[in-house]
Amino acid sequence: MKTAEQYLESLRKLKLKVFFFGKQIESPVDFALTKPSQNSVALTYTLAHDPEYSDLMTAKSHLTGERINRFTHIPQNSDDLVRKVKMLRLLGQKTGACFQRCVGMDALITLSSVTYELDQKLGTQYGTRFNEFLKYVQREDLVCNGAMTDVKGDRRLRPSQQADRDMYVRIVEQRKDGIVVRGAKAHQTGALNSHEVVVMPTLAMREDDKDYAVSFSIPSDAEGVLHIIGRQASDTRRLEGGEIDVGNAKYGVAGHETLVIFNDVFVPWERVFMCGEYEFSGSFVERFASYHRQNYGGCKTGVGDVLIGAAATIAEYNGVQDASHVRDKITEMVHLNETMYACGLACSYEGKRLPSGTYFVNPLLANATKQNVTRFPFEMARLAMDIAGGLVATMPSERDLKNPEVGRYVQKYLKGNANIPTEHRMRMMRLIENMVLGVGMLESLHGAGSPQAQRITILRHADLETKKKLSKTLAGIEENPKTNE
Amino acid sequence: MKTAEQYLESLRKLKLKVFFFGKQIESPVDFALTKPSQNSVALTYTLAHDPEYSDLMTAKSHLTGERINRFTHIPQNSDDLVRKVKMLRLLGQKTGACFQRCVGMDALITLSSVTYELDQKLGTQYGTRFNEFLKYVQREDLVCNGAMTDVKGDRRLRPSQQADRDMYVRIVEQRKDGIVVRGAKAHQTGALNSHEVVVMPTLAMREDDKDYAVSFSIPSDAEGVLHIIGRQASDTRRLEGGEIDVGNAKYGVAGHETLVIFNDVFVPWERVFMCGEYEFSGSFVERFASYHRQNYGGCKTGVGDVLIGAAATIAEYNGVQDASHVRDKITEMVHLNETMYACGLACSYEGKRLPSGTYFVNPLLANATKQNVTRFPFEMARLAMDIAGGLVATMPSERDLKNPEVGRYVQKYLKGNANIPTEHRMRMMRLIENMVLGVGMLESLHGAGSPQAQRITILRHADLETKKKLSKTLAGIEENPKTNE
Amino acid sequence: MKTAEQYLESLRKLKLKVFFFGKQIESPVDFALTKPSQNSVALTYTLAHDPEYSDLMTAKSHLTGERINRFTHIPQNSDDLVRKVKMLRLLGQKTGACFQRCVGMDALITLSSVTYELDQKLGTQYGTRFNEFLKYVQREDLVCNGAMTDVKGDRRLRPSQQADRDMYVRIVEQRKDGIVVRGAKAHQTGALNSHEVVVMPTLAMREDDKDYAVSFSIPSDAEGVLHIIGRQASDTRRLEGGEIDVGNAKYGVAGHETLVIFNDVFVPWERVFMCGEYEFSGSFVERFASYHRQNYGGCKTGVGDVLIGAAATIAEYNGVQDASHVRDKITEMVHLNETMYACGLACSYEGKRLPSGTYFVNPLLANATKQNVTRFPFEMARLAMDIAGGLVATMPSERDLKNPEVGRYVQKYLKGNANIPTEHRMRMMRLIENMVLGVGMLESLHGAGSPQAQRITILRHADLETKKKLSKTLAGIEENPKTNE
Amino acid sequence: MKTAEQYLESLRKLKLKVFFFGKQIESPVDFALTKPSQNSVALTYTLAHDPEYSDLMTAKSHLTGERINRFTHIPQNSDDLVRKVKMLRLLGQKTGACFQRCVGMDALITLSSVTYELDQKLGTQYGTRFNEFLKYVQREDLVCNGAMTDVKGDRRLRPSQQADRDMYVRIVEQRKDGIVVRGAKAHQTGALNSHEVVVMPTLAMREDDKDYAVSFSIPSDAEGVLHIIGRQASDTRRLEGGEIDVGNAKYGVAGHETLVIFNDVFVPWERVFMCGEYEFSGSFVERFASYHRQNYGGCKTGVGDVLIGAAATIAEYNGVQDASHVRDKITEMVHLNETMYACGLACSYEGKRLPSGTYFVNPLLANATKQNVTRFPFEMARLAMDIAGGLVATMPSERDLKNPEVGRYVQKYLKGNANIPTEHRMRMMRLIENMVLGVGMLESLHGAGSPQAQRITILRHADLETKKKLSKTLAGIEENPKTNE
Repeated sequence: MKTAEQYLESLRKLKLKVFFFGKQIESPVDFALTKPSQNSVALTYTLAHDPEYSDLMTAKSHLTGERINRFTHIPQNSDDLVRKVKMLRLLGQKTGACFQRCVGMDALITLSSVTYELDQKLGTQYGTRFNEFLKYVQREDLVCNGAMTDVKGDRRLRPSQQADRDMYVRIVEQRKDGIVVRGAKAHQTGALNSHEVVVMPTLAMREDDKDYAVSFSIPSDAEGVLHIIGRQASDTRRLEGGEIDVGNAKYGVAGHETLVIFNDVFVPWERVFMCGEYEFSGSFVERFASYHRQNYGGCKTGVGDVLIGAAATIAEYNGVQDASHVRDKITEMVHLNETMYACGLACSYEGKRLPSGTYFVNPLLANATKQNVTRFPFEMARLAMDIAGGLVATMPSERDLKNPEVGRYVQKYLKGNANIPTEHRMRMMRLIENMVLGVGMLESLHGAGSPQAQRITILRHADLETKKKLSKTLAGIEENPKTNE
Repeated sequence: MKTAEQYLESLRKLKLKVFFFGKQIESPVDFALTKPSQNSVALTYTLAHDPEYSDLMTAKSHLTGERINRFTHIPQNSDDLVRKVKMLRLLGQKTGACFQRCVGMDALITLSSVTYELDQKLGTQYGTRFNEFLKYVQREDLVCNGAMTDVKGDRRLRPSQQADRDMYVRIVEQRKDGIVVRGAKAHQTGALNSHEVVVMPTLAMREDDKDYAVSFSIPSDAEGVLHIIGRQASDTRRLEGGEIDVGNAKYGVAGHETLVIFNDVFVPWERVFMCGEYEFSGSFVERFASYHRQNYGGCKTGVGDVLIGAAATIAEYNGVQDASHVRDKITEMVHLNETMYACGLACSYEGKRLPSGTYFVNPLLANATKQNVTRFPFEMARLAMDIAGGLVATMPSERDLKNPEVGRYVQKYLKGNANIPTEHRMRMMRLIENMVLGVGMLESLHGAGSPQAQRITILRHADLETKKKLSKTLAGIEENPKTNE
Repeated sequence: MKTAEQYLESLRKLKLKVFFFGKQIESPVDFALTKPSQNSVALTYTLAHDPEYSDLMTAKSHLTGERINRFTHIPQNSDDLVRKVKMLRLLGQKTGACFQRCVGMDALITLSSVTYELDQKLGTQYGTRFNEFLKYVQREDLVCNGAMTDVKGDRRLRPSQQADRDMYVRIVEQRKDGIVVRGAKAHQTGALNSHEVVVMPTLAMREDDKDYAVSFSIPSDAEGVLHIIGRQASDTRRLEGGEIDVGNAKYGVAGHETLVIFNDVFVPWERVFMCGEYEFSGSFVERFASYHRQNYGGCKTGVGDVLIGAAATIAEYNGVQDASHVRDKITEMVHLNETMYACGLACSYEGKRLPSGTYFVNPLLANATKQNVTRFPFEMARLAMDIAGGLVATMPSERDLKNPEVGRYVQKYLKGNANIPTEHRMRMMRLIENMVLGVGMLESLHGAGSPQAQRITILRHADLETKKKLSKTLAGIEENPKTNE
Repeated sequence: MKTAEQYLESLRKLKLKVFFFGKQIESPVDFALTKPSQNSVALTYTLAHDPEYSDLMTAKSHLTGERINRFTHIPQNSDDLVRKVKMLRLLGQKTGACFQRCVGMDALITLSSVTYELDQKLGTQYGTRFNEFLKYVQREDLVCNGAMTDVKGDRRLRPSQQADRDMYVRIVEQRKDGIVVRGAKAHQTGALNSHEVVVMPTLAMREDDKDYAVSFSIPSDAEGVLHIIGRQASDTRRLEGGEIDVGNAKYGVAGHETLVIFNDVFVPWERVFMCGEYEFSGSFVERFASYHRQNYGGCKTGVGDVLIGAAATIAEYNGVQDASHVRDKITEMVHLNETMYACGLACSYEGKRLPSGTYFVNPLLANATKQNVTRFPFEMARLAMDIAGGLVATMPSERDLKNPEVGRYVQKYLKGNANIPTEHRMRMMRLIENMVLGVGMLESLHGAGSPQAQRITILRHADLETKKKLSKTLAGIEENPKTNE
């Protein structure tokens, strides 16, 4: 397993083509805007070497028997699924941010079963190829960018119906040695911190959409790949040179996202994991989505722990920690946070073995997990803002604090509890601002699919027929009523 | 293990002193008002003999190695805790009601560890006595009434401060052969269907309240025990002789509750499990409460399944099953129901071994479970009423349906979907009425303690100090700030 | 204006054909089941003679200039609309129940403008006829039953598509002297306390449904009219002869509802107000619905005041009135209640004059009012149950309290605050039970149309186009973009 | 009345001392960061000259009879209160932002009655002075900064108990010609766009806090006044030189806030409106707070209209405008928005005359208004983000769009509906980002006082005693129970 330093070194070797704010970036590794997001990923390496956390952070490869980083591991039992959630909560607690590496992990886990099933049913070699790829990822301890979400164009139209046929990533050519693909994937969290881009289809395809039923992996600096970094609220504060105003200077808040563009990129056959088998795309998507929705019961509750801690701390700094309404609001935050965690755990403990040996979460409970994450973090954010007060949005800058002329007024007048340095209070206010007014809220909603996507899955797995029978039995209604009364 | 018939026979042998509606009842076993509640308990016997459910419904006694009904079993691992929740969901699905036997189960489970710890710390014999009692319960396959909630008088005053000192059950005399107790326990669900009353303290006591720190078991028909059955909404419909208007004719909706009065009742020492050790009463109560709050993630989701099924069925009967808002409301019901279930599962899977060998649920998650149950069933009930329509509250009676003069109008005009018999639609409406306008709502709120009781426990287990440290670290605040800036 | 006694006397003269529980009822006036509902209506007469309330309870007829009961008045300005809401809150406060007379009031108000517009556009005489009818109602101070909701059969099918063509009230014959109608109206609140049944169409009709576009008035005891009283939760407690268990012995909780059946009933032309003009049925329904949804910001907040008062009182009786969480819950109840009231007021103050001179509420705000009433009373009920405690659903009966053998135990053990008689605590618990576990909840949801009906109207009146323009202007988007970029 | 241009010119003449980001600013009028906030205020001048809006935007002075800008008018009847709310909604619609001028308006309105009452009770001259000041404000058409919120230090301590006695603005010296004050006011919205700072006490004072019971007005550039501009999320985007990324380039989103510091500032007696009369401070605060809470039913619903319009527009641009769940979410946004508006209207229509002639809003309803504003805009923001999708937080910058190398990819891949220019979609996404991830959310919570402040006021005005009596009457409980049963 790599160390954090080795990881960063390996990133520096990539020749990524990256734009931000209308300019090409030399290397994202040493760019202040993206630095915090690398620190978050690097922590997934650091903690894997920490004996205190090795139980959560590492696993034994089912392919090689080697000890590997859990982010490259395929769950072989329910316990692996549970540890996945607990690892994510741990990292959420340590970073207060998105650490980005789980999307690639879920792509690998999904491919492990889908390629197996493809091979079983169609006699293809995808599973074999994938296992070779997986061994490489585990051995090199790589970060993968799991790229699913296409840009989609007009949502009413299927891929092959779009005015511009490139709105979903597609195969534009099949060659002897591989395929050529074109299109773009949106919202790619942590793309610049990844060694590989693992591409997946984004929805259930029909026959007409065959060319869009494609999955593969390529290095993130492959020829023809272009990254454009998306803007986040207050993103340029990281470029200002200070520390306090960023809120969470080390880890930022939510990684970064890029729009990844594939300009006729070549993929050799040994990295192609699906190529036109559209009838498998639906289960591919649902499976990936369920694994990824499971995660939100981990990472978001870890981040929630930080927000609860920040709310409790700022209450002290403001002098209101004993007010009954403040205690009640903190209790509510804890309650909501633990409810999300409970859902993440339950869908994991209730996991089942797939034919490939990979364990699958309970999809109904995994979707309920994420559905709660589209709601509760908003209420938690609202409560944290309530407790912290208006300064979250009106506080002078770090530079004002340090200015020789006005700094003393900032020191004097932003003091809360007289025993707490003003700077501490300012730092905590900024941490809260960072967490409640940023990309994290959007991620709670749309990460791993929109709220509506979960609702559709929940209804599909609800087994209404059984429930209807239960109610009819208790109401004294025979199952096959004769309609003539 | 007893059969249902043996169980009912054993109940008939009890000489309970019971009042309802100002009159003494001969035997609750053959009384139409309480009959449905017996049917629910009897099902816990029936299903234990059904091979399909034996995995959930039975267990191996850790004392005797015999196969016993799980309702008399002490969990020896997390899996036992999980099966407890799943058994309760199953019974909720089968009865659509409260099946009452879990309170006594939780009393036994709690006593198994508390009496052990008393003995370990104080050198008493409570554990030994309790194990003998437990063997008796397991061997005879008894139903225990777990009696915790005192009538409490003025809530601002502690037991020993009340104007009337009997507002909490207390020891009025210690004799050579046992103790004499006086007081009353309120809201005793299923009391008339129980062989034994297992009494527990209701809150953390102080030294002044020593006489109230008492736990014991007596037969439910012991000398001096008096039961007064509480009224429920629409209770007398069960006495009308019909079937439809009751809604759930076989199982009713929520058992029954009695006010159990102890008029200087004698308890022999071998049935006394705590006698004045006030310093153990707090953990006694929290432990019982956590086990009992766990349950609500099981039973209430089983009942929720029935309500969802009823809502989906009535939507069909009304002809609106395909309306997008109806599908969305049913999705929401499923989502809320599964969230409660996930919490119940998670607190069980995360259970830990106590020194006695008994497994304890995760108390933070167990309290979050119940807290959700104080909210979600209300929204589910609201949605079910929304889907069903106003007939839930304005529908003519079964007797009108069967009346020769007006029955044909009821038949004609209460028809929904033309392929469904009117009577079916009426039955389903009544099942819904029974579930949403009854004691079940109160039970969701106050069963296993009021909402506020859970909030206090949640905050106590929230570990805010750790969370505060996490936030300080990320905000760049040193742990021991010097206050001079 | 009649006195309450004259009103009851006039009811006794009606020869209603009424069934309850499979039996024909002699007179609903002296029937214990329906007595409380008459008391509620009678209060609308009593208070009209009370100088303290005459400002709210009476008005000057725009037709005759006479002082009349406001329940028969057609609003001539916004102030009349506001007083309507305030009168309803007053009556909700005084009865804690539904006082039933507002449906007929809204029917009259709606007809005053719709018949005018019919006459203006089609040259008919409906308005003239209606004004004669209205003068009669005002002069005789009558109660009208506004009958809109048809039984509807299969909700997917329009009236003329139903398997049984009588699922919506329809004209079966047009004669020289009048029309003959058949069908049934469901959920008719207060039908037995009404002198007249004013029938209205229940949805927007198309040409095929012409025969269903009918409005008229007939005496409630007209030949061919049959009433079947619907069951309510705990309805028969009123027949038990006691007082406490009923909760609100004088006024009950929610009037009564009947299924009103029209067996080929003859209506003379002078009482026919619409006869086949299907293109007016949509605005008829929307207008009536908006007036009726306005009301809920009045009556339900009056009832809410009683529930808040009951919660505050029971908190005292339990001894918890100073607990911060109890105060917070009461605050929340007040907040929700006042929000509903504010909506009811706002839609009234913002009323506009229709061509007939009648004032119409703001339909967007009126529908928002009712939409809130489909939510907030449920949360208020939940909070009241939370504060009151489990006794709401487990308390022994009045007969137990009065029983010589067990009464003293009930007295002793149901005591809360030592200064409050046990009976008072029991009465307050029963009042709460009566309000939170009964037909009132359904009425909050489905009265004046289901939640979805309001949402459709809200969206229709939302004026999204204007809002879209506002957002485009601010985003710097020109109104008529050229698509070539 | 001034024109917008005259207004800006008058601002330029002020010699404000202002810091932002550690540097002193020459003039806020021509500073890109604060420019949008001036545009918003300037619109209050522009629209006053627009005949279409003059009814809302202007009024007749009760002092001089001259036509004045309504922002300087004292409401003389309920209609004035209603127009205030409607004017604020209009401006919210036109700016999508905070237009800042209402705080000063409410300060003037409050002073008009409080100074009158001071004079009536104490024989002082505050009212006379204030009226002179008001005439000056009306004549010159000035913007006032209503400065209430002190920095407060430790919230547990009263002003005179703080370690640093300057944590609330206080009188440090009384001189023959005036007073000298010291302290700071936080969160001063629009301070740099104001001609005058009108200072008010921030809470109910006791005798010990006498020196803090002070109200006065001074020019915003008076000697000793220092402004430090607070940071807002994404504030520096306004300094980047582009337009799209700002979201709402013309009006920004929420004005600006400064920390206003008073370094021993001299105030001549003719501008002192309260000086030590601590017993009036409580009603001063409650009165101001109620007027200001009223406003939120106007401005925030105007801003809400823009957000609803933006959500409906982006739904079209994404191609999902017909999805039933999208329509339902937009309906919900409209419903919540209109509920806030209804509350704002109701508290205004229900206004009452104070002894001074000034009209006062209904304080219970005004506080309910603001309480809803601490909740609903959060749900509206969540729904808008749900509809818009993840691009809100991951979209490339304007500079990327315009970059010759990557711009064509942004154009191509961020296209939604093929008929809509990509730039339009980007603009709308940014408008939404601007509105949902910014200072507006904090303002909804803490503007005009924290949620808890409203709850305290709501409970105080709830008249629980009357409600308790209503419930006792209906429960059959006599008012003066004899306790011997």
